[in-house]
Amino acid sequence: MRAVDIIIKKRDKIELNREEIEFFIKGFVSGDAPDYQASAFAMAVLLNGMTARETTDLTLTMAHSGDMLDLSDTVDLAVDKHSSGGVGDKTSIAVLPIVAACGLPVGKMSGRGLGFSGGTLDKLESIPGYRVDLTTEEFKKQLKEIGIVLTGQSLTLAPADGKLYALRDVTGTVPSIPLIASSIMSKKIAAGAQAIVLDVKVGLGAFMQTLDEARALANLMIDIGKLAGRETVALLSDMNQPLGHAVGNSLEVVEAIETLQGGGPHDFREHCLHVCAHLLRLGKRAKNLEDGRAQAAKALADGSAFEKFRALVKAQGGDASYVDDVSKFPRAKRVEAVESPTSGYISQIDARSVGEASVILGGGRAKKSDAVDHAVGIVVHRKVGDRIQKGDPLFTIHANDEAKLAEAREMVLAAHQYSANFAQPLPLFYN
Amino acid sequence: MRAVDIIIKKRDKIELNREEIEFFIKGFVSGDAPDYQASAFAMAVLLNGMTARETTDLTLTMAHSGDMLDLSDTVDLAVDKHSSGGVGDKTSIAVLPIVAACGLPVGKMSGRGLGFSGGTLDKLESIPGYRVDLTTEEFKKQLKEIGIVLTGQSLTLAPADGKLYALRDVTGTVPSIPLIASSIMSKKIAAGAQAIVLDVKVGLGAFMQTLDEARALANLMIDIGKLAGRETVALLSDMNQPLGHAVGNSLEVVEAIETLQGGGPHDFREHCLHVCAHLLRLGKRAKNLEDGRAQAAKALADGSAFEKFRALVKAQGGDASYVDDVSKFPRAKRVEAVESPTSGYISQIDARSVGEASVILGGGRAKKSDAVDHAVGIVVHRKVGDRIQKGDPLFTIHANDEAKLAEAREMVLAAHQYSANFAQPLPLFYN
Repeated sequence: MRAVDIIIKKRDKIELNREEIEFFIKGFVSGDAPDYQASAFAMAVLLNGMTARETTDLTLTMAHSGDMLDLSDTVDLAVDKHSSGGVGDKTSIAVLPIVAACGLPVGKMSGRGLGFSGGTLDKLESIPGYRVDLTTEEFKKQLKEIGIVLTGQSLTLAPADGKLYALRDVTGTVPSIPLIASSIMSKKIAAGAQAIVLDVKVGLGAFMQTLDEARALANLMIDIGKLAGRETVALLSDMNQPLGHAVGNSLEVVEAIETLQGGGPHDFREHCLHVCAHLLRLGKRAKNLEDGRAQAAKALADGSAFEKFRALVKAQGGDASYVDDVSKFPRAKRVEAVESPTSGYISQIDARSVGEASVILGGGRAKKSDAVDHAVGIVVHRKVGDRIQKGDPLFTIHANDEAKLAEAREMVLAAHQYSANFAQPLPLFYN
Repeated sequence: MRAVDIIIKKRDKIELNREEIEFFIKGFVSGDAPDYQASAFAMAVLLNGMTARETTDLTLTMAHSGDMLDLSDTVDLAVDKHSSGGVGDKTSIAVLPIVAACGLPVGKMSGRGLGFSGGTLDKLESIPGYRVDLTTEEFKKQLKEIGIVLTGQSLTLAPADGKLYALRDVTGTVPSIPLIASSIMSKKIAAGAQAIVLDVKVGLGAFMQTLDEARALANLMIDIGKLAGRETVALLSDMNQPLGHAVGNSLEVVEAIETLQGGGPHDFREHCLHVCAHLLRLGKRAKNLEDGRAQAAKALADGSAFEKFRALVKAQGGDASYVDDVSKFPRAKRVEAVESPTSGYISQIDARSVGEASVILGGGRAKKSDAVDHAVGIVVHRKVGDRIQKGDPLFTIHANDEAKLAEAREMVLAAHQYSANFAQPLPLFYN
């Protein structure tokens, strides 16, 4: 078997068998198949596609390319969640404590932000001392002891995916549904997940811009889950406007904490309750979604979810006094409220532009090596469908640099569009 | 401008402009765009295609990536020919001396064989002492003095093509019509050609298997020629069966010499006269094809073409006594005549199988670093459409290894197919 012949088959739209996919990926990890072969292969996959069976074989090969986390001695059923990424998406920070408070242990490995899309690790690192580099032993011990872990991706899990992703990033081969699906699922499977809730974002501020694409990705991941023997649920959620109000690292942590205390923006709270309901049902802690949602709402109301988050922060070395008093988070030098320039209904708040404005302020990364400023960001005060008067507060910018503030202000102003007539609010989820 | 964005445009089927193509290829040659970006780009081009305009820009960028040979001080009009490669294709060895004898100076850089397809340089090196590594100065001096040069491709011409071809070979991106066309034309343009006759082979023993593909390649190269200001003629010639009778290095040189002496196989002679007619017309030595053909036939008949070949061999350091007495070429240890196993009409002689049998005998290369045995090969005695009786001589194998002889014999036997009824001879050229 030669790597080039496998590329040629995919180029010629011939379905690859498991042995061929394993041979290619193992060769890629070992260096026998150089990067230039892997990038030609990735382009052929992007343009010619892969069947669910091929994608599952690719997923399992990448999952098995490094360590496989076995949580069977730690929890009775390992559940996991994944979001495909977006703007203002602090869901994991709220959802994990809620379901853990409901008695469902959950340990999750998260990623960093890149481009307009934020990352859970960057947000959590707003809390001084919070460690995102737990060892496998620490992960399992903490999961067993307090039922919640939220840390970084271990480099020893699915190294083939890490290597392939880095190559895809510089060869124009990121937006391939089979490659995205296998990347996500290989990491979840390597991390020991037996049941998975996938939150596939769709819209202006998501990687999937259309419902058709998002649905194709969701369905493919469900197929992979079936073929790989992992119960998988995929939700399609709106990412045309930012989720919640806050975009920016510590600003989002504060919003998640407020939500865990029973407050927070309405859309974000509803989004979290729905995700929790699915996790609790999959994790066999709720008999159905209604039951799951009720349990989750109770955990918010009775303070147990907030207490679980506090325990998480302490367990991972974070300063819990920040959780108790969010005013301790460093405030940006300039906090400027911007008023609405017009009256009417808000018809659009382009999430991508808001995400990019946050990057310009220093809250995200243009490239992987960039450092992140945890204090800066944007808080939008309105949602699509809201009626607004000229002069009403529209959004607030938190900045540490005057020029960047001005640039971000223009971007976020332009991200808002208005309609004289009633504009339909956006749904939280799509079918 | 970033290389990855150019890959993304081609991936998304957006036409690239000249600046983008130049930026990418220059980056590839300098190393700024690594191999893994070039291979992803090549796969995107293979699967999404390129317009004639894009292909011309790619061609000219690759042509200008190294030295540009300027023959304006050497000849009044620089003509060149190129064959897309096949089995038994010793055309250049006969055609160049013929047109040179007719007063059209022609200097050509040729290539080596790979796989089933032979190469002119390997064939010429059958002649002891024949040099294929002339310097540019030697090339121009010899072209001026005797009006004929047949040497190897200078490494300083179109280095981008050399680098890209090597990468295409190992990434499954060879069979792309725009990439093949730009590779051929970039070398011709860098070598100073002002008018070009392209011999595009089509059939079992060619890279283009169908007339449609061959026509697409031919038309694209004509378009490039037009856009690049080089008069270009493309012929479509049959490569289902071997051209002439001999397949193998010294065997083919001997057949070319016999043809230059006025003999040789009928099909090969006719093929050469047609190519010569086009070259003489393009080179303004003949007023039309009939005139060109008559001049070429005369040069064969009066011995001037043979004398020109003798002069070529001497000028490039070859031992001309081999040209005068072809029995001096080393003979393979085993020369075995194989008889026809059946009676009927020959309906097929699969050129590719015959070419591969020659590779097995040692006459070609499975990979670039292989050495070539100049003595071995196959001489087919019949052509498609011939009536044959069981026991008639079908082909002769020249071998230096008994086991390889047996393997080649079976392959060439299997390459011949028969029909009880009249089988149509194959045309030499297609429209």
